[in-house]
Amino acid sequence: MKQDIPYKTYLEENETPKAWYNMRADMKKKPAPLLNPGTGKPVTAEELGHVFCDELVKQELDNDTPQIPIPGEILDFYRMFRPSPLVRAYFLERALGTPAKIFYKFEGNNTSGSHKLNSAVAQAYYAKAQGLKGVTTETGAGQWGTALSMACSFFKLDCKVFMVKCSYEQKPFRREVMRTYGASVTPSPSMETEVGRRINAAHPGTTGSLGCAISEAVEAAVSHEGYRYVLGSVLSQVLLHQSIIGLETQAALRKLGVKPDVIIGCAGGGSNLGGLIAPFMGEKLRGEADYRIVAVEPASCPSLTRGRYAYDFCDTGRVCPLAKMYTLGHDFIPSPSHAGGLRYHGMSSALSELYDQGMLEARAVEQTAVFAAAEQFARVEGILPAPESSHAIRAAIDEALRCKAEGREETIVFGLTGTGYFDLTAYQSYNDGKMQDYVPSDADLEESFAKLPKIG
Amino acid sequence: MKQDIPYKTYLEENETPKAWYNMRADMKKKPAPLLNPGTGKPVTAEELGHVFCDELVKQELDNDTPQIPIPGEILDFYRMFRPSPLVRAYFLERALGTPAKIFYKFEGNNTSGSHKLNSAVAQAYYAKAQGLKGVTTETGAGQWGTALSMACSFFKLDCKVFMVKCSYEQKPFRREVMRTYGASVTPSPSMETEVGRRINAAHPGTTGSLGCAISEAVEAAVSHEGYRYVLGSVLSQVLLHQSIIGLETQAALRKLGVKPDVIIGCAGGGSNLGGLIAPFMGEKLRGEADYRIVAVEPASCPSLTRGRYAYDFCDTGRVCPLAKMYTLGHDFIPSPSHAGGLRYHGMSSALSELYDQGMLEARAVEQTAVFAAAEQFARVEGILPAPESSHAIRAAIDEALRCKAEGREETIVFGLTGTGYFDLTAYQSYNDGKMQDYVPSDADLEESFAKLPKIG
Repeated sequence: MKQDIPYKTYLEENETPKAWYNMRADMKKKPAPLLNPGTGKPVTAEELGHVFCDELVKQELDNDTPQIPIPGEILDFYRMFRPSPLVRAYFLERALGTPAKIFYKFEGNNTSGSHKLNSAVAQAYYAKAQGLKGVTTETGAGQWGTALSMACSFFKLDCKVFMVKCSYEQKPFRREVMRTYGASVTPSPSMETEVGRRINAAHPGTTGSLGCAISEAVEAAVSHEGYRYVLGSVLSQVLLHQSIIGLETQAALRKLGVKPDVIIGCAGGGSNLGGLIAPFMGEKLRGEADYRIVAVEPASCPSLTRGRYAYDFCDTGRVCPLAKMYTLGHDFIPSPSHAGGLRYHGMSSALSELYDQGMLEARAVEQTAVFAAAEQFARVEGILPAPESSHAIRAAIDEALRCKAEGREETIVFGLTGTGYFDLTAYQSYNDGKMQDYVPSDADLEESFAKLPKIG
Repeated sequence: MKQDIPYKTYLEENETPKAWYNMRADMKKKPAPLLNPGTGKPVTAEELGHVFCDELVKQELDNDTPQIPIPGEILDFYRMFRPSPLVRAYFLERALGTPAKIFYKFEGNNTSGSHKLNSAVAQAYYAKAQGLKGVTTETGAGQWGTALSMACSFFKLDCKVFMVKCSYEQKPFRREVMRTYGASVTPSPSMETEVGRRINAAHPGTTGSLGCAISEAVEAAVSHEGYRYVLGSVLSQVLLHQSIIGLETQAALRKLGVKPDVIIGCAGGGSNLGGLIAPFMGEKLRGEADYRIVAVEPASCPSLTRGRYAYDFCDTGRVCPLAKMYTLGHDFIPSPSHAGGLRYHGMSSALSELYDQGMLEARAVEQTAVFAAAEQFARVEGILPAPESSHAIRAAIDEALRCKAEGREETIVFGLTGTGYFDLTAYQSYNDGKMQDYVPSDADLEESFAKLPKIG
């Protein structure tokens, strides 16, 4: 096969980014601040310091510093699995017969199986540096919990994961990876926390939700000396750490002399999307370049395409600060037929604000179409993608087919966030022809919006 | 962390090997030939041509050509997942406090999760080039079947996998990956073949064995027009394709200016070991260099350390040619408590001959010690290893600790053949403290040896 550009581009160690990029610094209109649900006022660093590590609070509230140096121990850890390859999807292009050039940044080549490790190691490092004993968190599909377990094991931190009960039961292998890395894993809602007991009492037999697991993890952190809570998405600090994805992508593309036309990322809470697009959005915000930036979300959990831009609770138990974001309402839970992650009810405040400003597009895709794209991709590119990542694959294929129809040689870059080795139950359902699509009704969403807090 | 050598070394595309290396060409005493079980005479190319593709028969019988060019389409496919990284295990060295330098060649960064893909793509390519409709094979732990499914899907070949029944039931996710790549997967022994029906009748309720699945796959190939049988280990052709591992390792070490002292590989049928050591063994055979080469096998299936060097059947149904090899007897099946692969009763003829000549060492390790090494490695190096690969990790750690005790700065290189994402049941058993060790008794082995055919 003729190749003007290598199949895979790895940056040399001396070309890899040594600082994260804080997209908020280049936003003229900043993301709306987190609010204290009691007072309705912006949360202070002190208030947040009960929940998060001090350095992470600083990063969360910093809307001004564009470059934040990556500590040496985090850079060391990154060497285990970074730089990740930027792959030219020659085989997919050939299969589609498209004149488009397709690239993907592959973040799945690590044992946690996704990009989540980029932020997990940062959060674990700062917790250790502060002299803490351990951290608590929640996990849904399990990617974040696995990543955090790996990071905590490395830094010898205690790690307590509240895993949404249905995932805990359906994904025993994810749980086992976390245990192998020494984490304790509790199905949520549990009887270990006040909020868990309350939810179990109100909804006997519930299989849990992400919002509920967040409440439990926060309570477990604030009620134990030497513990803090950490989160794998949504927060600005997470997008900051994930900017490593976009920075490497940008550096590799520059090295290859390639300028993308379209940049595509899947979007749940926004960690991957925000990280992948960060430096490109920076160029766009500074007026240096223009790109189409596309967020792809599940039609069953469509926060950007069908949500409200409003202040909402981040968790079911309402123990977290309020965030202004595109939200489906804090009680929204996607249909049980929804496979994989991308099931959070809201979207990162920074991305929500950028979407509101028209700086990015969004589209929703149905899951059978997503798995069809996943299978097509797996068969030619040799990587079995995670269901989450496959949302971006779906959109990338659709854009490439548009280029084919229009005879355009556009350059498409998408984020391949992870692998689907722990999602074979969903693949089986697709292979057996049993997978169903689901779209929430307008009435369901209206009912959910009615519970939005009256603020802002 | 101070680093004189990069954490990961990737060869550039123009530095990657373009030909496989045939170790047999440098052996003065060649491996014993395969025999026709009917005539007791060496099998001819024509006889083998009923079972294997023509080009692969040529490779199987070629004891003389040192370099065999890799066809362009195979090189293209290799670009998906090769070159694989040579990793300096800085974190493991630090955890062990050893003066030894440890490197590992990581073959797990592809969806099949192991090195098996190196030969699968070659075998699928030659089948396609010969105009065949499809191939049949067997799989035990599932790595080979997965790899072959990926390769066949890429070349649009039909792929029929006989999966040892107990694995089929215990590893539904492996099965599902194969189905996603379009393969048909049949639990073995099945009722689809003569030999399967015979074995089912003789042993009602049997959960199968590798030897039995091989017999079924061979029968299915020879009884269907346009099909051939392919095998993931043991054969010389497989070791030839796997030499890509060793060639890349050698090239990377030379680029770094490093000469290894000890080279360690896990050994089942010999595909990984034979591939990893090939060019180093070549130097040794030509008298250009000396290395300690160590084969590590399970104490529960110890063909090199406790087997006989004799002609034996390669399969339970006795449909395959006879091979001279270190063998535990063709009826030998490791204890059900044995987790993971490395469960074949014999060892590649080429490796057996080299072992007999004293060109390599062998050691057997027990599985709880193997999983302890796996966990230690996973926690510091960030990769959850396959149980098979962890045999090599165990030996590498033991060698590094010896270096520490002796104050030696030796360089240890081992093959990390794959990841353990589909082996979490075994990890769970280890995490729960329920894993048992097992060593066959001398009496068991004697009984098995008594059934060796009286040949050669």
